[in-house]
Amino acid sequence: MNEQNNTSLFPKGEKLPGEWFSGNAFLHPLLARDKNNDFALGSVTFEPGARTHWHIHPKGQILIITEGEGLYQEKGKPAQRIHRGDVINIPENVEHWHGATAHSKMIHIAVTNYQGDTNVTWLSPVTNEAFSEANK
Amino acid sequence: MNEQNNTSLFPKGEKLPGEWFSGNAFLHPLLARDKNNDFALGSVTFEPGARTHWHIHPKGQILIITEGEGLYQEKGKPAQRIHRGDVINIPENVEHWHGATAHSKMIHIAVTNYQGDTNVTWLSPVTNEAFSEANK
Repeated sequence: MNEQNNTSLFPKGEKLPGEWFSGNAFLHPLLARDKNNDFALGSVTFEPGARTHWHIHPKGQILIITEGEGLYQEKGKPAQRIHRGDVINIPENVEHWHGATAHSKMIHIAVTNYQGDTNVTWLSPVTNEAFSEANK
Repeated sequence: MNEQNNTSLFPKGEKLPGEWFSGNAFLHPLLARDKNNDFALGSVTFEPGARTHWHIHPKGQILIITEGEGLYQEKGKPAQRIHRGDVINIPENVEHWHGATAHSKMIHIAVTNYQGDTNVTWLSPVTNEAFSEANK
């Protein structure tokens, strides 16, 4: 067998915009919405310290963590550590963020459902203070 | 970082029934259909020689190959080799099968869309002759 599990499953892709992400986050798109699949599929890499802004998915999102350790936090709740092999089913209309920890990278597949033509609404950045608190 | 990419991403799960699979195939369910996600999500492990029977998905299926090398064949077409990092978007109502090769295991995540209450219709086994031909 030629398989090498000790490399990342997908290429890193293109850097995601600072408008919606803090730090070095990258997207490798896997599949666009089509007539059978009412979601977008992609692999997102967060270097240490990188995270999404706060945001909402109108029809939820599934994260499949494929590498590393990161953080997931819903507004008003403590941050959770998330690891390779975890599957997170993010509810609709819940304000949240996800990303790396301060010192470890995290890569996840995202399955992002559409409601009408929208699958995400972006909100404010996760401040350095809130990120530090989430890493405690 | 404690992460170990040299182990499988998910547990192997439970052996799948001989009624629908040939050889040693296993399912680790990841997520059932719910109000946001109109699909089932699971990780399927095929030991060398294992494969699905021929089957149809009424609203298609996505395979994300997470480990190893395997085979995917649509009826009337040559079999294709599929590898870790490949994403296969299987069309609706196309008779096909997937599995390991004769000598390598293959693991994939499956995203299986529903149409009504159905996401698969099982057909006849892939014969040893057809499997040998696909491995050539």
